[in-house]
Amino acid sequence: MQSLGCDVAALNTVDFSNHTGYGQWTGTRSTPSHLLSLWSGLRQSHLDDFDMMLSGYVPGALALEAVGQIAEELKQKNENFFWVLDPVMGDNGNLYVGGEVVPVYRGLVGGADLVLPNQFEAELLSEVKIVDMESLKQAVGVLHERFGVPHVVITSVSLPQQQQQQQQQEQEQQQEQQQQPEQENEGDGGRRTLSVVGSSMTSDRQARPFIISFPAIDCYFSGTGDMFAALMVVRMREAVCAEDELETKKSWLSEDGVDALELPLARAAERVLGSMHEVLAKTAEGMEGRLEGMVRGLLRREGGVGKKEMQVLKSKAAELKLVRHLDSLRAPKVVFRARKL
Amino acid sequence: MQSLGCDVAALNTVDFSNHTGYGQWTGTRSTPSHLLSLWSGLRQSHLDDFDMMLSGYVPGALALEAVGQIAEELKQKNENFFWVLDPVMGDNGNLYVGGEVVPVYRGLVGGADLVLPNQFEAELLSEVKIVDMESLKQAVGVLHERFGVPHVVITSVSLPQQQQQQQQQEQEQQQEQQQQPEQENEGDGGRRTLSVVGSSMTSDRQARPFIISFPAIDCYFSGTGDMFAALMVVRMREAVCAEDELETKKSWLSEDGVDALELPLARAAERVLGSMHEVLAKTAEGMEGRLEGMVRGLLRREGGVGKKEMQVLKSKAAELKLVRHLDSLRAPKVVFRARKL
Repeated sequence: MQSLGCDVAALNTVDFSNHTGYGQWTGTRSTPSHLLSLWSGLRQSHLDDFDMMLSGYVPGALALEAVGQIAEELKQKNENFFWVLDPVMGDNGNLYVGGEVVPVYRGLVGGADLVLPNQFEAELLSEVKIVDMESLKQAVGVLHERFGVPHVVITSVSLPQQQQQQQQQEQEQQQEQQQQPEQENEGDGGRRTLSVVGSSMTSDRQARPFIISFPAIDCYFSGTGDMFAALMVVRMREAVCAEDELETKKSWLSEDGVDALELPLARAAERVLGSMHEVLAKTAEGMEGRLEGMVRGLLRREGGVGKKEMQVLKSKAAELKLVRHLDSLRAPKVVFRARKL
Repeated sequence: MQSLGCDVAALNTVDFSNHTGYGQWTGTRSTPSHLLSLWSGLRQSHLDDFDMMLSGYVPGALALEAVGQIAEELKQKNENFFWVLDPVMGDNGNLYVGGEVVPVYRGLVGGADLVLPNQFEAELLSEVKIVDMESLKQAVGVLHERFGVPHVVITSVSLPQQQQQQQQQEQEQQQEQQQQPEQENEGDGGRRTLSVVGSSMTSDRQARPFIISFPAIDCYFSGTGDMFAALMVVRMREAVCAEDELETKKSWLSEDGVDALELPLARAAERVLGSMHEVLAKTAEGMEGRLEGMVRGLLRREGGVGKKEMQVLKSKAAELKLVRHLDSLRAPKVVFRARKL
């Protein structure tokens, strides 16, 4: 966010030695009172004039309520304030927060402007089991209608094989029709496809869903959710500011006449996925070599590499090559286009 | 540092709501055991392979000893490891750490590779009262000879008026001789001049001192010391890597035949001061207007602006415009040149 020109104030919700993908870490979680104390410190010095807030992992229900309170106060202070909420709860069917956190998120998402759950988190929020495109759309519908979430992007969408193939065919057909240049994923027939599905609601809370598909890079990456969220903050604002006075409208919601594919949310997500694909591809490039080097080094020093050790080294080899590829953040090539869903 | 491509792991020594220039803040200082716990977390996952370390403000003698221990272990792990130590103790004759911290720094600086005290901190370390160029050179000499500090830059050097004028005259003469283009400070006759004085020692611990002078911007800036230190990390490495195999030499020390003005340290400091002058000038540009706007806003909302409030607003108006001017970090124009001292 800073490399793209955002003046960021970070409220650390944890202070860990490393990300949890390593399977081991040291450090502390911030307590609710610490978070609220930092917030009161910002407030007393008039440092509470934020345009946007991005919230990610928050440790526990009480800390999450503190974050909700901060967002509420920011919204009262600035009617154009925009909260991007990444409801970090779990992935692939595994909850990695306490069960009591889920209902707190359900209570908070209605106050957010853009919510970024992955497929599992979208299920937890909407209480809709996502098994196909229909149930996916239904989950988006629930977030708009029942919770009043203005903008939604569901990330890491992976549906059964059949569905995916159908999607990919549709995409290829569409590309031929639009006479677009060939995509990077051309020829990677064996690769798994992932998608994000987004929507900005209309004034009567109807969905305007779009889908963007891209080839998955088979890897142990950590932090891709955080990267997606941080880039969405920047690109959403940019796309909204490109429209006439849209940033002064409530929750930056486009007029009802605006089509799914014309939504600033779709423009933003396309650019974000362009950046991400570049960074992930560049990270994957040298990864095998880095891992081999590390394993050799450890064998030399310690004579063996256990299973736990292997997870650590793989995590390290897969650390996103972010700061070495800032150009990919600043000037992404858009290669994956939104399609109507 | 990240915007210049450094992969940084931050060990937070404080978790404050804002910098202390505001005169008020909330949050916590990291305990020595928290710092050592984070370090052991990094170590257990093989995340302790750093090329460089920058240490800044550390709260208290025990936490400082923990930082010294971390540096020691890093040095043992990697013989080319380089520690940039900013011995944050005070400024302008005021100590803002406990008195017991000073001797701990005296015990640690010999293990550092580059030490960046301001004038007051250089006095504290060297026990030489700096009143003129002679005593300044003496302080540098003590750091090299007695403590064995390989590289030193003393920042915020401000000597009595006479001395400064003499300096400036010398600089102008030198510029005419070199037929350099006019500097930005031309015509600002009334401005105060500041300097940094640096030196990389020879194999027998003799100083090779140089001085770089620049016009002071009269302002309440905070964080300029941190900015100087962070940029020095990047530029020192860059300047050293431009020399043949210098980064494999102990503490990156140049051969005895290398003159003060040819030192990588001098090249690095010139670039750093170029970046800083640009960022500070751009920050100062809109500052009056920002301050007036904030004062007006506060008057409207609260009917008055007290003295404490005024310090807060001035601090906010003077917040370095860093992320909006990343180009000044990436590609500074060198306008202030090192001269032999």
